[in-house]
Amino acid sequence: MMEKLVTSEFKLGIITGGQLGKMLTAVANSWDIKTYILDLDEKCPASASCTAVIKGSQLDFDDVYNFGQKVDMITYEVENINIEALKKLKLEGKTINPDPDVLEIIQDKGRQKSFFKKMQVPTSNWSLYSCKSEIIEALDARKLSLPFVQKLREGGYDGKGVLLVKSENDVKKLFDAPSVVEDMVDLEREISVLVARNKDGEIRCFPTVEMEFNEKANLVEELTCPSSLDRSIQDRAEKIATKMISDFGMCGLLAIEMFIDKRSNIWVNEVAPRPHNSGHHTIESSLTSQYEQLLRAVFNFPLGSTKIKMPSVVINILGEQGFEGAVKYEGLTQSLAIDGVKIHLYGKKITKPFRKMGHVTILSPTTDEAKQKARAVREKLKVKSW
Amino acid sequence: MMEKLVTSEFKLGIITGGQLGKMLTAVANSWDIKTYILDLDEKCPASASCTAVIKGSQLDFDDVYNFGQKVDMITYEVENINIEALKKLKLEGKTINPDPDVLEIIQDKGRQKSFFKKMQVPTSNWSLYSCKSEIIEALDARKLSLPFVQKLREGGYDGKGVLLVKSENDVKKLFDAPSVVEDMVDLEREISVLVARNKDGEIRCFPTVEMEFNEKANLVEELTCPSSLDRSIQDRAEKIATKMISDFGMCGLLAIEMFIDKRSNIWVNEVAPRPHNSGHHTIESSLTSQYEQLLRAVFNFPLGSTKIKMPSVVINILGEQGFEGAVKYEGLTQSLAIDGVKIHLYGKKITKPFRKMGHVTILSPTTDEAKQKARAVREKLKVKSW
Repeated sequence: MMEKLVTSEFKLGIITGGQLGKMLTAVANSWDIKTYILDLDEKCPASASCTAVIKGSQLDFDDVYNFGQKVDMITYEVENINIEALKKLKLEGKTINPDPDVLEIIQDKGRQKSFFKKMQVPTSNWSLYSCKSEIIEALDARKLSLPFVQKLREGGYDGKGVLLVKSENDVKKLFDAPSVVEDMVDLEREISVLVARNKDGEIRCFPTVEMEFNEKANLVEELTCPSSLDRSIQDRAEKIATKMISDFGMCGLLAIEMFIDKRSNIWVNEVAPRPHNSGHHTIESSLTSQYEQLLRAVFNFPLGSTKIKMPSVVINILGEQGFEGAVKYEGLTQSLAIDGVKIHLYGKKITKPFRKMGHVTILSPTTDEAKQKARAVREKLKVKSW
Repeated sequence: MMEKLVTSEFKLGIITGGQLGKMLTAVANSWDIKTYILDLDEKCPASASCTAVIKGSQLDFDDVYNFGQKVDMITYEVENINIEALKKLKLEGKTINPDPDVLEIIQDKGRQKSFFKKMQVPTSNWSLYSCKSEIIEALDARKLSLPFVQKLREGGYDGKGVLLVKSENDVKKLFDAPSVVEDMVDLEREISVLVARNKDGEIRCFPTVEMEFNEKANLVEELTCPSSLDRSIQDRAEKIATKMISDFGMCGLLAIEMFIDKRSNIWVNEVAPRPHNSGHHTIESSLTSQYEQLLRAVFNFPLGSTKIKMPSVVINILGEQGFEGAVKYEGLTQSLAIDGVKIHLYGKKITKPFRKMGHVTILSPTTDEAKQKARAVREKLKVKSW
């Protein structure tokens, strides 16, 4: 199979060409696999290393369907894709990994929650609401009480579409759209487990990653691997991840964000069937990167070892508040002067407050030292505009 | 400096787009630096990840000169380049790293040898000959005796242009062109040391790599890092490397191949001012890859740590004897099943006996285990044709 793949004109289609797509094409290049990207922006990050960008919207039926006709297999780096087009392509025999049926469940955070229940994985209690006024009515009727979390059922990403509702003031900010309202977990820590599965059913988990959250940006600020959590909790988390990808029966990568509460209970927050922010570190720190693992999974190759070569911390390079326009990176040279600092710039030309412009992986013999270095990089490296 | 570099339309020119150029452009992409390749083949390996290929020959004055006009800085992945064009570009103010004056010395193995002497680094005795008959005359006059090594002064690469002359039969095969004839070292081991230097004069050495040679292919068969040589010998080798790049006063990467004789003496064999086969392992095994280090050096950034994350062995993926044509790789899937196996396919469409089609890096907690796995990969992975 692979023999043919790497020497033929086999075309791997990737839906959208953001940073995750870019890092995926880089690995495909080292196996000499042709990659075609569907993206509205011909200069998207992945354009640097893909075979070709095909211009189009991932939300448009025709664009997705026509793109599918041009490639031999489809995978994706976002959830928000025209699902009808994918389903029609599947019906017509196109291989899509992960399967559109799985994506359809995950696209809708309400459906995700129901599936968690069906899978019997622990997740906080929730209800579905169709609009803002319905939630306010429930509050007034004392059927719902603060604090809670509101999540848009569809289209959220990178912290967008999630609202922590703690006060009356937050209630005013509620999204007026179909949403999931769920109990707020008495949070001790947030973790992520990435797991891969191929068609043969082989499953491999990456080690648990600890995520530190920046509430202001509503984004993960720092990711650490290995986690300092008790081995027993990590084992439980990895067991949940393994069960979930197996229950989904999917080929590809599944990222599972989980909460650990003060009593060491695990609650599954949400999942993504694609490469994930919490797997960036694997490029340098793991025997197999999440991007290589995704290729192995979708092509049904043996999965790679997920052993850690070295501890690491990842920080996002976010656009500074107060700057919008042509991007300017300050402090790159000083950051590069720190041993073990690996800088990834995604190639976005325009910065906005909190936009993900890149990430930095810091490798060090201990996570403590890596965290210290991460602090130094965070102080030096600033995304402004010219 | 870097602030401007990564957000402007700065163009890094790379002369030729083989596998070394390909791996260099991959790193440039992660810093969002634009790369332009000069190559006769628009589908050369680097075309997968560069910004653009500009068609032309690196040996043609006009092609090199015109290419230089289109880019902001030039570096290269081969030695065999039209030096007059580079010198003219330099005169006109173009930045070329490493400097053409250094390349001019290294291009000619005779001049290299003289420079080694001037630097007072140990190298085997040698003489220059202009043609085959001159060598035969010297043999007849007993001014020269078997065994010896003949190297073409210019244009050799990947073992081509080097002849081990041990018997009368070998004498018949002598190259009839200007050559260096040198004493054969009483070889115990062959090693390579890669060293980088930036404009500020900062120098960092990669750890010594041990090379095992395949005499039939006249190519290195297996590279191991770290080396099992006495620390004191490695220290001496790294000291020689540091001195050499300092004496050359160059910005960039210098690969220094050395012989260790039976009495643990070190003899400098030859040098290359570019990324090198013996540095492939650094992609996965080192805190900084040789390609990232080259970028750091030519842009005068702080150099990166060369610490090893994990021991490794590299083997070349060579075209099998008896096969020529459209490439077919056998045994890829079985090779991928071995933990720690990283496969790099360069994207060459045509195989020939002993052509370098790719390489495999095998990472393992010990070099012994890595060597064992390398043997397994060598047995499974075969480059044939369809």
